[in-house]
Amino acid sequence: MNYLPEEDLVLVPGGTLLTDTPEEGRALAMLMARHTIHNIQPDLDILMCGRRIYSVDPDSLMFASQVVAIEFQTIAAANNYWRDCYY
Amino acid sequence: MNYLPEEDLVLVPGGTLLTDTPEEGRALAMLMARHTIHNIQPDLDILMCGRRIYSVDPDSLMFASQVVAIEFQTIAAANNYWRDCYY
Amino acid sequence: MNYLPEEDLVLVPGGTLLTDTPEEGRALAMLMARHTIHNIQPDLDILMCGRRIYSVDPDSLMFASQVVAIEFQTIAAANNYWRDCYY
Amino acid sequence: MNYLPEEDLVLVPGGTLLTDTPEEGRALAMLMARHTIHNIQPDLDILMCGRRIYSVDPDSLMFASQVVAIEFQTIAAANNYWRDCYY
Amino acid sequence: MNYLPEEDLVLVPGGTLLTDTPEEGRALAMLMARHTIHNIQPDLDILMCGRRIYSVDPDSLMFASQVVAIEFQTIAAANNYWRDCYY
Amino acid sequence: MNYLPEEDLVLVPGGTLLTDTPEEGRALAMLMARHTIHNIQPDLDILMCGRRIYSVDPDSLMFASQVVAIEFQTIAAANNYWRDCYY
Repeated sequence: MNYLPEEDLVLVPGGTLLTDTPEEGRALAMLMARHTIHNIQPDLDILMCGRRIYSVDPDSLMFASQVVAIEFQTIAAANNYWRDCYY
Repeated sequence: MNYLPEEDLVLVPGGTLLTDTPEEGRALAMLMARHTIHNIQPDLDILMCGRRIYSVDPDSLMFASQVVAIEFQTIAAANNYWRDCYY
Repeated sequence: MNYLPEEDLVLVPGGTLLTDTPEEGRALAMLMARHTIHNIQPDLDILMCGRRIYSVDPDSLMFASQVVAIEFQTIAAANNYWRDCYY
Repeated sequence: MNYLPEEDLVLVPGGTLLTDTPEEGRALAMLMARHTIHNIQPDLDILMCGRRIYSVDPDSLMFASQVVAIEFQTIAAANNYWRDCYY
Repeated sequence: MNYLPEEDLVLVPGGTLLTDTPEEGRALAMLMARHTIHNIQPDLDILMCGRRIYSVDPDSLMFASQVVAIEFQTIAAANNYWRDCYY
Repeated sequence: MNYLPEEDLVLVPGGTLLTDTPEEGRALAMLMARHTIHNIQPDLDILMCGRRIYSVDPDSLMFASQVVAIEFQTIAAANNYWRDCYY
């Protein structure tokens, strides 16, 4: 078994939901989604194998996107939608 | 492998959730949904191949629509539902 | 290919989430859900074909209903749940 | 074809999201979920046929429950969770 | 046919979303999810049969958990997340 | 049958949605998701068996992640997104 390093198992990388920009919030959403999966399945070999399957299957990509969209809802609300952030 | 250009990988195109109109907010929801997928699968050839499959499968179209609906919830809330916007 | 007319591609028909009644809000939710699909698949022949499949499949009908339910959450919030609207 | 009567096609039966009790709100959630499906598939014979399939399939029952849960979120929020309602 | 007793068909058991503790709120979420299904399929024999199938299928268990999670969102919001409740 | 111990059946472990950090909130989300499943299927042998299936299936991992994302939305809102928490 090829365990993921400890840092890939942190559930909320960075320890906060607050980010400076929407782009960073979105990246955090993707990272949190990935790290949930790491915690359920911490064997890198199985993950890489799974990636080869789901990354070419349109429905799997939709399911992944849905998770990211839900995580982002939380992060966007946490940041008050970055309304006060100037661009 | 036929990599997507950098601009198709931006997670929040435009860098903000704020838009002038609901129509633009909805277009952003669709774009953000697409760019999530680009980040998981950045090979244009595989994406085009997947498109040929999911775009003719009613359930896949529903799954895609669900992602767009969730992204739009976030964007609509960010814009306070464009309540103060005159038409 | 049998392209949909331009008006079936508008993402937020009417250009606003605000409606006079819950019934109209619900109709907008259904319309927005449909127009998302139109934008992903604008060929009317393929859509009609897909309709013949999903409209007789209970699970597909559930998936479609779920999208409508999510869209309606956004529209209902936008209208403050039509609380001030008299019936 | 055996069309549903007009009243089964009303999207928000009663024309309002406001109900006196949580029980009534929940019944409305179920009704709204059903009427969405009626509007996509208004042929009673096909619906009855579909019911025979999904009502014995655990996953289909879960998908149906999920739609009801989402509709109820909207209705419960509309009614301020019936917090001021005495029992 | 082996009909469920009337009490298993109540949509909001207890008639309110307000509970004293998160634990009770969570139990209500599970109960409401179950009673939705009872109302769609009130035959106990079919339900027991379905249970034998879905309770050993990981994906079905996920779908069931998702419904509970959505119901709990509503109940938790109704109770203001039990923030004022001392433990 | 190999029943889970009582503590694995508690629906809201710790009895509160309030946590000190996002990381702890996320861990609670995962735990609550697991305990829902424990309450539907309390036989450890069947659960271990199911784990061997879903933990190597990309779509199952997505469905599990989706449940965690929804639970986390509730917990994050309960904690006001840990905005006042210093890191």
